[in-house]
Amino acid sequence: MTEGRYPRAAKGEIKRYAKLQMKKYREEEGLFLGEGLRTVLELLSHLPDERYLVALFVVEDQLMHFPLHEKMYREKVRLIRPEEAERLSGTATAQGVVGIFRQSDRAVSFSEEGKALVVALDNVQDPGNVGTIVRTSAWFGASAVVCGSGTADRYNPKAVRSSAGSLYCLSHYGVSNLCRELVSLQEKGFTVCSSSVQGRDLRTCKTWPERIVLVIGNEANGVSREIASIADRLVAIPRGTDGQNGVESLNAAVSAGILLAFLTL
Amino acid sequence: MTEGRYPRAAKGEIKRYAKLQMKKYREEEGLFLGEGLRTVLELLSHLPDERYLVALFVVEDQLMHFPLHEKMYREKVRLIRPEEAERLSGTATAQGVVGIFRQSDRAVSFSEEGKALVVALDNVQDPGNVGTIVRTSAWFGASAVVCGSGTADRYNPKAVRSSAGSLYCLSHYGVSNLCRELVSLQEKGFTVCSSSVQGRDLRTCKTWPERIVLVIGNEANGVSREIASIADRLVAIPRGTDGQNGVESLNAAVSAGILLAFLTL
Repeated sequence: MTEGRYPRAAKGEIKRYAKLQMKKYREEEGLFLGEGLRTVLELLSHLPDERYLVALFVVEDQLMHFPLHEKMYREKVRLIRPEEAERLSGTATAQGVVGIFRQSDRAVSFSEEGKALVVALDNVQDPGNVGTIVRTSAWFGASAVVCGSGTADRYNPKAVRSSAGSLYCLSHYGVSNLCRELVSLQEKGFTVCSSSVQGRDLRTCKTWPERIVLVIGNEANGVSREIASIADRLVAIPRGTDGQNGVESLNAAVSAGILLAFLTL
Repeated sequence: MTEGRYPRAAKGEIKRYAKLQMKKYREEEGLFLGEGLRTVLELLSHLPDERYLVALFVVEDQLMHFPLHEKMYREKVRLIRPEEAERLSGTATAQGVVGIFRQSDRAVSFSEEGKALVVALDNVQDPGNVGTIVRTSAWFGASAVVCGSGTADRYNPKAVRSSAGSLYCLSHYGVSNLCRELVSLQEKGFTVCSSSVQGRDLRTCKTWPERIVLVIGNEANGVSREIASIADRLVAIPRGTDGQNGVESLNAAVSAGILLAFLTL
């Protein structure tokens, strides 16, 4: 039995880390919450180094997933009660495991030339979509994900869950003015290609530029007018030939996945 | 002011319909909940006919979206207080608008030959994924979505939200034995094509059969062994050339979207 050998969490710790449910505190502390065994294990398996794991709060019956003989766990695991897990995560979804992780924002300094793919999020508001797009971007080999100020926080617990550990797999960063960032990428030789229902049918794009930024817009309204106006290319995903006219659009993360697949495969 | 002219909801109604949060009651009544203005408007815009809207519970400040001069609204709108909206939906996300809709299950009787696309869900557990896959299937022109017994209920409020009204845009139905259903589709000339990480690279499939069932599996474990064993073809979505080996998989709805795009475009 290992239970007795892990220290109990201090009350102050629970209180302090529960605040990480709020963006303001995540930013102040440079930390974020990983909730639930699966999310925590995914983050741990991509940890850049041990310092990125700050603490691991675990309910007794979940302890077997964190063997004491591993030094990292020995030093960072704290025992909690189920109600403390709920308090830490603000929901009942934590299932007895909540990790405190260090944020890993980094902008990228792109070399002067050569192949590169960046994904830009313009007002993507659902944290689940943001996390899923980060995960898909990592799968398809994007160098970075850049988030405009209106986009949901990628360290929001829901975004963390849907990113499936990929937050540690590629560069991502936030900017206050996405339009300006895109212009600066254009100056570095990037073609800005924006998804848009008014865009050109994806199938007519036989070749793609070597250096490309793919912009994904807001769930309800698409990309903002300002960004559409500076884009070098607008592309649309057409309906299937028997597609229902009734359906107005695709989900933002599904659109991103399809565009990334066509761009990279 | 129209407020005074809509009747107030009876207590019994709120109590009865709040039970639709549970699958058991949804099945018993053949009804489901649409929560939030956007979801309700999407469902209304695809309503097969007026009978599919049973009742519309609306908080006063949202009434302007449902003009009294339309007969349908006049007869079905009931005024509620914000706390009643929360009670109906079990969450704070209803934003003052909750619709009660009639389920629209229908199996499809496929003609003997000709083009057809069916999407099958094998243990897809996240309701958000289920709804998003229904939406994407409608976009790409699938004839039907068939759900195995382990798959999340497509009338779960989260699934309804992510389906964006598409539940009324195409046929969908549940089966107790998905494997048997697939075999019966094979007998009708369908090729069963299952997504699988062990499958053949999507890009090597230059042509697709005219009649096809695309199977999407469980988020963590993929398609079940039984179904993989009867599939005519297993396909995989490869990583991009610079893709991070760290990321284990794509989200199930994103995979479905990419496969449907390659199949139909």
